Amino acid sequence: MTKGRLEAFSDAVIAIALTIMVLELKVPHDPSWAALRALWPVFFSYVLSFVYIAIYWNNHHHMLHAADRIDGSILWANMHLLFWLSLFPFVTGWLGENHFAPLPAAVYGFVTLMAAIAYYVLQQRIIASQGPGSRLREMVGRDVKGRISPVLYVAAIGFAFVNRWISIALYVAVALMWLIPDRRIESRLR
Amino acid sequence: MTKGRLEAFSDAVIAIALTIMVLELKVPHDPSWAALRALWPVFFSYVLSFVYIAIYWNNHHHMLHAADRIDGSILWANMHLLFWLSLFPFVTGWLGENHFAPLPAAVYGFVTLMAAIAYYVLQQRIIASQGPGSRLREMVGRDVKGRISPVLYVAAIGFAFVNRWISIALYVAVALMWLIPDRRIESRLR
Amino acid sequence: MTKGRLEAFSDAVIAIALTIMVLELKVPHDPSWAALRALWPVFFSYVLSFVYIAIYWNNHHHMLHAADRIDGSILWANMHLLFWLSLFPFVTGWLGENHFAPLPAAVYGFVTLMAAIAYYVLQQRIIASQGPGSRLREMVGRDVKGRISPVLYVAAIGFAFVNRWISIALYVAVALMWLIPDRRIESRLR
Amino acid sequence: MTKGRLEAFSDAVIAIALTIMVLELKVPHDPSWAALRALWPVFFSYVLSFVYIAIYWNNHHHMLHAADRIDGSILWANMHLLFWLSLFPFVTGWLGENHFAPLPAAVYGFVTLMAAIAYYVLQQRIIASQGPGSRLREMVGRDVKGRISPVLYVAAIGFAFVNRWISIALYVAVALMWLIPDRRIESRLR
Repeated sequence: MTKGRLEAFSDAVIAIALTIMVLELKVPHDPSWAALRALWPVFFSYVLSFVYIAIYWNNHHHMLHAADRIDGSILWANMHLLFWLSLFPFVTGWLGENHFAPLPAAVYGFVTLMAAIAYYVLQQRIIASQGPGSRLREMVGRDVKGRISPVLYVAAIGFAFVNRWISIALYVAVALMWLIPDRRIESRLR
Repeated sequence: MTKGRLEAFSDAVIAIALTIMVLELKVPHDPSWAALRALWPVFFSYVLSFVYIAIYWNNHHHMLHAADRIDGSILWANMHLLFWLSLFPFVTGWLGENHFAPLPAAVYGFVTLMAAIAYYVLQQRIIASQGPGSRLREMVGRDVKGRISPVLYVAAIGFAFVNRWISIALYVAVALMWLIPDRRIESRLR
Repeated sequence: MTKGRLEAFSDAVIAIALTIMVLELKVPHDPSWAALRALWPVFFSYVLSFVYIAIYWNNHHHMLHAADRIDGSILWANMHLLFWLSLFPFVTGWLGENHFAPLPAAVYGFVTLMAAIAYYVLQQRIIASQGPGSRLREMVGRDVKGRISPVLYVAAIGFAFVNRWISIALYVAVALMWLIPDRRIESRLR
Repeated sequence: MTKGRLEAFSDAVIAIALTIMVLELKVPHDPSWAALRALWPVFFSYVLSFVYIAIYWNNHHHMLHAADRIDGSILWANMHLLFWLSLFPFVTGWLGENHFAPLPAAVYGFVTLMAAIAYYVLQQRIIASQGPGSRLREMVGRDVKGRISPVLYVAAIGFAFVNRWISIALYVAVALMWLIPDRRIESRLR
């Protein structure tokens, strides 16, 4: 019961964060190609963040599926994750409107890093609540992607002040890594 | 379980895309008939897009009803469809604010075309997952409307640069084609 | 199944229409009493529309509870109702920002009237689908409130151009009539 | 059935109120540290209100879980609570944009106070509907936090006009009091 309502609430928050991002794509007052072209950085950020949030929803859904019971610490760890996801519309807009300038690119990385940490904390809370022989721990396994992602986010934050395109390339790389089905990438990494 | 949550998440995204479109109907600062009349192109686009999204929700709901199990490829095909639907508030606002100017009318057609393709891909993924004797394949049948719509969208994109009203008339025609109950139109097309 | 998803989708659209209305309460840049006082017409419209939408949700929920199966005509009658409810944020903002000026007050009445008609159409579709001995027809009974409301909306539209306060008083009266529990008002009207 | 739909609708409204608050964090046009620093008061208010709404969702969920049946008075008491929660985006934006100026700080306290009262009224309606031996009354117990919070809100409203930081500190204190798991704080208060 509690789990169902936690899922419903999380779905709603994630769906809203995903969908109101489109409001950062300000409608131009001008029907020209120039006006459309000027939107590409915001559109690119929109696509990137859409993919990130979709990945989070996807993984969140599998993780909660494996959870048995929800206690207070899981509830709050979940709220903590939703908090960082709720900041995506803001950092996406800031990144796009400023053509991937160093500081917005670094702040974007900071929010993705914090979301990754929040996700990890939530995962650990669920595993702890399941005790030894946790179903979720088995599913997660060595969690190669989960361990690499934060490292790449930290690198992207640093590179933002050196060359913004390296930073953006790293965000794209992490998204692709999660989009490609699991087994293939994990076996390649072994 | 997975199917239930996929439906809930899709419902939320579609409902939000539908409802935040009204924010493009900017409240005039002036309580005059002139101010109200000036809104008609945005209002018209709003009605058109409302009908489009309602049709997508309706069809999406029947399609998922016929699906048995959800795998990763169906999940991502669904996300891809939601992505194009999430752009409706943007193209609706741009189309209306610029009185159906050629470029916004063509971009509107591009987004409807991409949504139609995404819908088709999702349908094929579900049919493939059901194997031979797929329930959904039977339901879809010859899919006359699904095959005609993209052709009309492409035509509308082209006509946008010739005569915008032909383009708008085509969008209205596709919407009406989907609104009219199935059997009648299919028998007329045979 | 279909009914559950129709309810979920309707809930989402109604909840969003209700909640994004608050965005019409523009945050003043000034922390003064004068700035707060200047907001009262928008705040008043907000409260009025909040109550209207809450009443619609409440009645919609009872009506669908009494429905047995959902066919295409019910689905579209429901979408038609959601369309008019989705316009509440717009008319609420326009009414409030222009201090209940005649035209916005009349347009507000037009949207409430159309929502009432859409609600009635949906009700009739469900009753028709249930055939003789319809559970919903019994629940609805003589439907005194449902018959009086549109008359009062039409009156309010007319009075908007004579004296705006009569118009606003009528909107408040209809809301109160629906808020007061049924039996009392119905027995008074007999 | 009614309870499930009431929960779903409440979840949607609470999730939207929570998530659209981020729209008050206006995206700066400037990618500088100065622009980011200038946002701290709005960001701080955002975090504070996020925690408040999360606490309300959490408690609301436990309270409805303990409810047996939903009557009209519970439905409207719930709508009344949602009304005050829906004002959080407004008061949060006003508080942050004006650097915690006295009047916005007091109005923030007023809305939190009204939400607390609405929550209490809803709780009493559910307890009354359960009659003697109410499960919810047992769960609520002496309700120490529920009784202290309104007193602190009233104090914060008063202090807003003396020293804004005392007022803000009180809002933070109430949030922390609710975040810390129950038993610890209750035993300390005895």
